[in-house]
Amino acid sequence: MTANSFHPPERTLMGPGPSDVHPRILEALSRPTIGHLDPVFVGMMEEVKALLQYAFQTDNKLTFPVSAPGSAGMEMCFANLVEPGDKVIVCKNGVFGGRMQENVERCGGTAVMVEDEWGNPVDTAKVAEALQANPDAKILSFVHAETSTGAQSNAAELCRMARGHDCLTIVDTVTSLSGSPVKVDEWGADAVYSGTQKCLSCVPGISPVTFSERATAAIENRATKVQSWFLDLNLVMGYWGSDGGGKRAYHHTAPINPLYALHEALVILQEEGLEHAWARHSQMHHALKAGIEAMGLSFFVNEASRLPQLNSVTIPGGIDEADVRSRLLEQYNLEIGAGLGPMAGKIWRIGLMGHSANPTNILTCLGALDAVLTDMGADIRSGEAVPAAMAQLG
Amino acid sequence: MTANSFHPPERTLMGPGPSDVHPRILEALSRPTIGHLDPVFVGMMEEVKALLQYAFQTDNKLTFPVSAPGSAGMEMCFANLVEPGDKVIVCKNGVFGGRMQENVERCGGTAVMVEDEWGNPVDTAKVAEALQANPDAKILSFVHAETSTGAQSNAAELCRMARGHDCLTIVDTVTSLSGSPVKVDEWGADAVYSGTQKCLSCVPGISPVTFSERATAAIENRATKVQSWFLDLNLVMGYWGSDGGGKRAYHHTAPINPLYALHEALVILQEEGLEHAWARHSQMHHALKAGIEAMGLSFFVNEASRLPQLNSVTIPGGIDEADVRSRLLEQYNLEIGAGLGPMAGKIWRIGLMGHSANPTNILTCLGALDAVLTDMGADIRSGEAVPAAMAQLG
Repeated sequence: MTANSFHPPERTLMGPGPSDVHPRILEALSRPTIGHLDPVFVGMMEEVKALLQYAFQTDNKLTFPVSAPGSAGMEMCFANLVEPGDKVIVCKNGVFGGRMQENVERCGGTAVMVEDEWGNPVDTAKVAEALQANPDAKILSFVHAETSTGAQSNAAELCRMARGHDCLTIVDTVTSLSGSPVKVDEWGADAVYSGTQKCLSCVPGISPVTFSERATAAIENRATKVQSWFLDLNLVMGYWGSDGGGKRAYHHTAPINPLYALHEALVILQEEGLEHAWARHSQMHHALKAGIEAMGLSFFVNEASRLPQLNSVTIPGGIDEADVRSRLLEQYNLEIGAGLGPMAGKIWRIGLMGHSANPTNILTCLGALDAVLTDMGADIRSGEAVPAAMAQLG
Repeated sequence: MTANSFHPPERTLMGPGPSDVHPRILEALSRPTIGHLDPVFVGMMEEVKALLQYAFQTDNKLTFPVSAPGSAGMEMCFANLVEPGDKVIVCKNGVFGGRMQENVERCGGTAVMVEDEWGNPVDTAKVAEALQANPDAKILSFVHAETSTGAQSNAAELCRMARGHDCLTIVDTVTSLSGSPVKVDEWGADAVYSGTQKCLSCVPGISPVTFSERATAAIENRATKVQSWFLDLNLVMGYWGSDGGGKRAYHHTAPINPLYALHEALVILQEEGLEHAWARHSQMHHALKAGIEAMGLSFFVNEASRLPQLNSVTIPGGIDEADVRSRLLEQYNLEIGAGLGPMAGKIWRIGLMGHSANPTNILTCLGALDAVLTDMGADIRSGEAVPAAMAQLG
């Protein structure tokens, strides 16, 4: 086989991530590679840590990006905090709660499951019961923003309850970070991970994490070695440091250029301001919602727990949903997401994440969806969506 | 803290990696991000797999890039092949053999160590003894090209011996791949991992791996679950596929843009041709060697096992080696590597990897090293190095 250089099409990314990457971030990505122990690079690492503290709203010293995707960030939290025999209360209301269960069990822990229907938030009453019934539980883990459904859970309340039972918390903020309020210190969360390819609008492949002092102490005082060498925080800390400076020990070669990109994404976030970013995501969600509802389509998640950045829309009856997505991609270069697992064929997931959360994308998405569904003979109100969104955008 | 966009200096990278990234690769990296399940991206994934088969010289169907650095590629091999109680013969002649031991033990296996002095290749006679003495060993693992010393071991012979004892092999080719001959099928190696930031001259953060049918069968027939969810090949195969096509199941979000970069790096390798790349590394090594020896410095590793792409040079007496590296970086924007572990203060590691293995870099390195050492009053033959290298370059 002879391969030629690859030139991707220019898509509009409105699925569950990756989102559209800001041009400034793509440009930063392509700056000259330097060494991972270069003092200039180490200086940039310090800035990335400080900027991530801002994004997570935390003073945690141990705040840094894992050199791998969000699922490795998740695994870093579980592999470091769960020791064989530990009991973990795992809340599951979508795909990622299930992945948490896998993580607990593969670390030799016991998962006590608190299950809620997909599309619902985690039921705090059930969690209260589980905490009561399992006084020996070491950790409570839950997903703040379920990417598989678009439902948001009450992180502040869940963390408060866990603290009341002297439980550590592991919180998934992959889809929420910088799209809706994530307040690690105010919540009192202990181990929190996220991804770069959602509301930070950065390229996929890196996972920001933050650990409280309680979590850090638990890791330092483990009775057993962390089962993963690559994800062992006791080793990773030597490279990223948790003291705000000092000597760096080689652990692995950091992904230099993707870290340039993350740095730029965080500089952009700082320029906009977190509160403004949250407000923009909310505003864009309302415009999309106006269009979706004007078309006659409906949302899968109740309004009270609906994430602005991930919109699960119920697929109208009699429509081949995969065909809709193919046409959107081929005719309009527009990507929206399919349902995962039991949600396959039931919902589309329309992302309004980071740089993708803008008026042009919303009009593109609504116009294209309207055109494709009309062309396929779906029972919708053609031509209503775009004007409704425009009215909302003002 | 208010951070501004980060603009790295333009370094010449002649340490143990990352190496200088080819401008075509940096440009590819910055192309627009598309979805990880986009059919166009899946098509590119197929090309990356085929190109990696070429780079590894293998027909292994299970050949793909891990979405994380080389140490995660190493861990993928161990975590998938080692089950609790398994015995693994681990050859250690530098840092990375020690890391293999860590991996075996963290997977619940028993490591039988075959140790050689740092700077020496793995002693095949000792390995023969260990294989004889441990007929229950399941795996033999070794580093083909020790990045911490620059010594090359006889991979073909070690794999042949392992096969004779019905042992699987895990082989580290992080520093060798595309810099010196790596012939997975000819060797009969079973699980082989590498990195992108060495002789492929790509950005750090991705780890190409390949698994033989024997290894794949062993993984499929495990009695226990792989302890890492992120690195579980039974799951990863669903996304990367091992059948040359078909449906892709979501596992994690692939690092889209770094994979564009890897694709471009492999296209460049294909254009040059593997044999030409190997010859170029060898030729550049001889030019560097001529200069280093003309200066009066010497190599740490015996000529017979010396890697062309990683040159360990003995530090002359009475010289503050860290000061030398700082001056090279500050005055010449040139990065060379320090010694690791017991080699700290004893050797410098000068990389001639991928795009860095070119005549300009060699003259830059020799000229700068000569100037700095002369300035510091080192006992060298000033002014001899560059002419000697030029004569060798022809």
